[in-house]
Amino acid sequence: MRDSLADLRERTRAFAAARDWEQYHTPKNLAMALSVEVAELAEHFQWLPTGRAGELAGGQHEAIRHELADVLLYLVQIADKLDVDLHAAALEKIQLNAIKYPPPEP
Amino acid sequence: MRDSLADLRERTRAFAAARDWEQYHTPKNLAMALSVEVAELAEHFQWLPTGRAGELAGGQHEAIRHELADVLLYLVQIADKLDVDLHAAALEKIQLNAIKYPPPEP
Amino acid sequence: MRDSLADLRERTRAFAAARDWEQYHTPKNLAMALSVEVAELAEHFQWLPTGRAGELAGGQHEAIRHELADVLLYLVQIADKLDVDLHAAALEKIQLNAIKYPPPEP
Amino acid sequence: MRDSLADLRERTRAFAAARDWEQYHTPKNLAMALSVEVAELAEHFQWLPTGRAGELAGGQHEAIRHELADVLLYLVQIADKLDVDLHAAALEKIQLNAIKYPPPEP
Repeated sequence: MRDSLADLRERTRAFAAARDWEQYHTPKNLAMALSVEVAELAEHFQWLPTGRAGELAGGQHEAIRHELADVLLYLVQIADKLDVDLHAAALEKIQLNAIKYPPPEP
Repeated sequence: MRDSLADLRERTRAFAAARDWEQYHTPKNLAMALSVEVAELAEHFQWLPTGRAGELAGGQHEAIRHELADVLLYLVQIADKLDVDLHAAALEKIQLNAIKYPPPEP
Repeated sequence: MRDSLADLRERTRAFAAARDWEQYHTPKNLAMALSVEVAELAEHFQWLPTGRAGELAGGQHEAIRHELADVLLYLVQIADKLDVDLHAAALEKIQLNAIKYPPPEP
Repeated sequence: MRDSLADLRERTRAFAAARDWEQYHTPKNLAMALSVEVAELAEHFQWLPTGRAGELAGGQHEAIRHELADVLLYLVQIADKLDVDLHAAALEKIQLNAIKYPPPEP
C-alpha cells in the first residue's frame, strides 16, 4: 500500500490539474490558504475554558476532523511545490528538538 | 515499513511522554501552537511580489522546510488527541471537494 | 469628541458586561479570536495574483470592512485586559522601527 | 489633539513613504504581515493553562505590548489602503453585533 503522505501528494496533484488550479497554487497563496484553514480549526477552541477534548460539544468532532483534513491537504501541496519530503523533514526536526529539549535525567 | 503519518504519531507521543509535556498538549493549545508555526511559514512569503517559488532567496528553503515539519508535527499531535485518522479524513475531504468543485467538462 | 480608541474601549467593555461575557474574555481567548478574524480577512486575498486593491471584486469591500472592524474590536479588548495604551505603544514601536530601519540618505 | 487612529494613519504613511516601501504594501501583503504579528502575540499565550492575565510571566508584558502595537500598525495600514474608516466601521459592527446578540432581559 502506498504511504499516506505520498498518496495525498498524488491525489492533490491530480485534483488541481483537473481543475487547472495550478496557476493559483503558488507557495505563498497555499501558505495563506493554510493559515485560513488553521484558523477555522482554532475557532472551535477559542472560548473553551482550558481546551481539553472533553469540553468540545458532540457535533464539533466531525467539523474539526474536516478542518484537520484541510490543513493536511494544503500542507502536502506546499511541500510538493517546494520539493520538500515532509516525512524526512519531520524526522530531522524531531532530532533537532531532541537536542534542543533533552529529556530530564531519570 | 511503517506509514509516515503513523510513524510520526508514535514518535510525537514518545517525545511528549519523555518530557512530561502531555499536560500542556490540550487540543486547544496544540491548535494555537499550530497557528504560530503556520505564521512562521507565512512570514517567508509575506513581501514577495507574487509568491512563486522562484522569488524565494536561496537560504530560505531550509528554514521553510523546518517550518513545514513543525506544522506537520503539531497537526499529527492534534489529530492524535482527538482520535482522528488524518489520512482517512483527507481522503473523505477530497471526495467532498470533488462534489463541491466538479472538474470542467472536457 | 472622545478619542476613537478610547471610545471603542468603553463600548466593548459595556457590550461584554451587558452579556456577561467577561468570563470568556481572557487575553488568551481574545488573542485566539483575533487570529480567527485576521484569517477571515486574509481569506479575501488568498488567491489574488499580486494582492493589489484593484484585484478585489466589488462586493468584497464591505465584507473586508467588517473584518477589519472585528480585528480592531478584539485588539482593543486584549489591550484593555492587559492595561496597554494602544496609541502610546504604537508611537513607541514606530520610534523603535525608525531606529531599526533608518530611512535611506537623500 | 489629533485622533489616535488618524494620527497613526499619518505616521505609517510617512514612515512607508520615507523608505519607499509602498511597493510592498499591497492589502494582501499587509494582511499576511498582520497575521504573522497576531501569531507572535498568540505565542505568548499558547501553553498557559487558562490564559488569564495572571498566568503571564513578568517579562512578557513589554513584549506583548509591542506585539499589540505591531498588530495595530498593520491594521491601520490595510484600512488606509482600502479607504476604510476603522472607527466608523467598528461602530457599525458593534451595532450589527448588538442585533445578532441581544443582551439578556433584565
